[in-house]
Amino acid sequence: MPIHWLPDGEGIAILDQTALPERVLVRELRDLEGVEEAIRSLRVRGAPLIGITAAMGLAALARSAARGGTGSPRTEGSAAELARRVEEWCERLARARPTAVNLSWAIRRMRDTARRAAKHGGSAGQLAERLREEADAIRREDRDMCRRIGEHALELLGTGEGPTVMTHCNTGVLATGGIGTALAPIYLATERGRRVRVFADETRPLLQGSRLTAWELARAGVEVTVIADGAAGAVMARERPAAVLVGADRIAANGDVANKVGTYGLAVLARHHQVPFYVLAPTSTVDLETPTGAEIPIEERSPEEIRRGFGSVTAPAEARIWSPAFDVTPAELVTAIVTEQGVARASYGPALREAVEAAGRERARPGGGDRP
Amino acid sequence: MPIHWLPDGEGIAILDQTALPERVLVRELRDLEGVEEAIRSLRVRGAPLIGITAAMGLAALARSAARGGTGSPRTEGSAAELARRVEEWCERLARARPTAVNLSWAIRRMRDTARRAAKHGGSAGQLAERLREEADAIRREDRDMCRRIGEHALELLGTGEGPTVMTHCNTGVLATGGIGTALAPIYLATERGRRVRVFADETRPLLQGSRLTAWELARAGVEVTVIADGAAGAVMARERPAAVLVGADRIAANGDVANKVGTYGLAVLARHHQVPFYVLAPTSTVDLETPTGAEIPIEERSPEEIRRGFGSVTAPAEARIWSPAFDVTPAELVTAIVTEQGVARASYGPALREAVEAAGRERARPGGGDRP
Repeated sequence: MPIHWLPDGEGIAILDQTALPERVLVRELRDLEGVEEAIRSLRVRGAPLIGITAAMGLAALARSAARGGTGSPRTEGSAAELARRVEEWCERLARARPTAVNLSWAIRRMRDTARRAAKHGGSAGQLAERLREEADAIRREDRDMCRRIGEHALELLGTGEGPTVMTHCNTGVLATGGIGTALAPIYLATERGRRVRVFADETRPLLQGSRLTAWELARAGVEVTVIADGAAGAVMARERPAAVLVGADRIAANGDVANKVGTYGLAVLARHHQVPFYVLAPTSTVDLETPTGAEIPIEERSPEEIRRGFGSVTAPAEARIWSPAFDVTPAELVTAIVTEQGVARASYGPALREAVEAAGRERARPGGGDRP
Repeated sequence: MPIHWLPDGEGIAILDQTALPERVLVRELRDLEGVEEAIRSLRVRGAPLIGITAAMGLAALARSAARGGTGSPRTEGSAAELARRVEEWCERLARARPTAVNLSWAIRRMRDTARRAAKHGGSAGQLAERLREEADAIRREDRDMCRRIGEHALELLGTGEGPTVMTHCNTGVLATGGIGTALAPIYLATERGRRVRVFADETRPLLQGSRLTAWELARAGVEVTVIADGAAGAVMARERPAAVLVGADRIAANGDVANKVGTYGLAVLARHHQVPFYVLAPTSTVDLETPTGAEIPIEERSPEEIRRGFGSVTAPAEARIWSPAFDVTPAELVTAIVTEQGVARASYGPALREAVEAAGRERARPGGGDRP
């Protein structure tokens, strides 16, 4: 589990993903700066998990504040007062990473929850309780969404004994509140006795593929082979994989997909080799407000990650570095987008709108959103 | 200069490219094991430079042996005796790296030189002298070939003020006896006052792009930007480069190109973006004996380069690793192959044969091969 509540509920504990695979290191976060830093420094990463972390972080901060930061179970102040502070925290956290839409989506849910609760009056403690429930709901929904995405995607992988698939970055247990997005069908197939073979790009600059995907798949007994990003073409030519499975940090209304840098190149290779290219992501990743990929802000990473990646000097100081964290894969290269609502195919405009609306209706039902 | 003779001519000094860009470290090689290890461990690398290193190494070993390994200028033994030892050394060195055809090409030249000299009788010292001349010729021809390749390629880059080009791995001063193969037109354009912008893939696993290409271009005042290999697609989409320029480790008779892993993916991206994809290499890289890319042996690198690349654990021990050093780009993705003989275009079969034959005629002329 990449994240959990601390026993007093006034903080969260995260698995520090920057230390993997060398060390399994758990960090306790008890203040805004800690949560913000963890997201910004990729100690937690993966679009769904970033959203969950922000939500749980906000709820924990609210509980701590309601108790006067003393750890005492007595709560102080009014809901309205606390709601104002929550709004400030939301603004701060929303700026921690610009590309993943789940972050702003989760923060908006928490902020709206705080506003609604404040309108009803009541104590800060009651508001904190509502935020805790909302954060739990976001996490639970995410867990269920992972399984649903996995089930839908599994239908695309055929019935063969052991399909070979390629993936990029990390979109599994370490990226979500459940069994992942793009890795979900791999876990489900493995549960059901199929032997999936996975080729994982190491995914420079931060190597989430070799450090995280390989770690979690190997622990789960899945056959995983790590390759340098540049070897993807050779794998595609030699292995003829059944599919490329990737996640998404943001999906524009027209189906353009922003995901970890290198995804676009993989999509072009997949098209060249006639290998299906599937994007697996919850509807919360779909941003209907962003018409196309051209409008998605692309975060740039620090040049130091290229220049001095792993303790050695790997590029000279005089050279420039350009290190975009993400790239945009145009919708026409995407064979299908799989959300918890099902398999969407081009033209993506209407299909994605429908999926997002179906997700909204589901959440609006009593008890909705947390059932598979 | 990546390589030179030691003053007594009984050894060579190489710039240890594994230490760049952090340290400029020169190593003296005075025995077969040293030369072999330097090639195998990529202390010298780049197809042309590997050939030069083998040739100079063999000549130095021969001189040392002729002098009885004592450093004395007196020579001992017959040419025939020494020629037999040279044959043994040739066999050993030829196995140091399997993909680069320049290595076996240079070794064959040295072996044939030894055989011819031995036929004429004479002393070991005379044979050693012939080998030294042959190694010097190989190096001189390579230097001239670099400039000729650069001139031919420059015609393909148009007349614009500052073209933007992409490159992969290292194919420059550090890879050759001159100004490089794929980097040669960049150096020539810079000499002539044009401002070329170069995007260099860092080129995992061994980062020859960020460590070596960025180092030598930045030192020469060329604007070079290092990118993660996965960012090549984003660069192609954003910058619309004038061309992709790459070298080759072996070119099959049909024009299929084996080059550093990642080249193939770059070629597919170039095709997708309608960017010309040029392969720049001397005719000694063309292997008419190898009909297609499918017959080119592909060296696999140690998994440790992926698992523990730069002093940190970057992949878990339980994960498999596949690390081919090269990939094969099919001829149909190559816009042109530029050799010192000119610009070859599809269909490559006849064009490459003609270029190789022209190079052979040039060498057969008195004093041939070493004139531009």
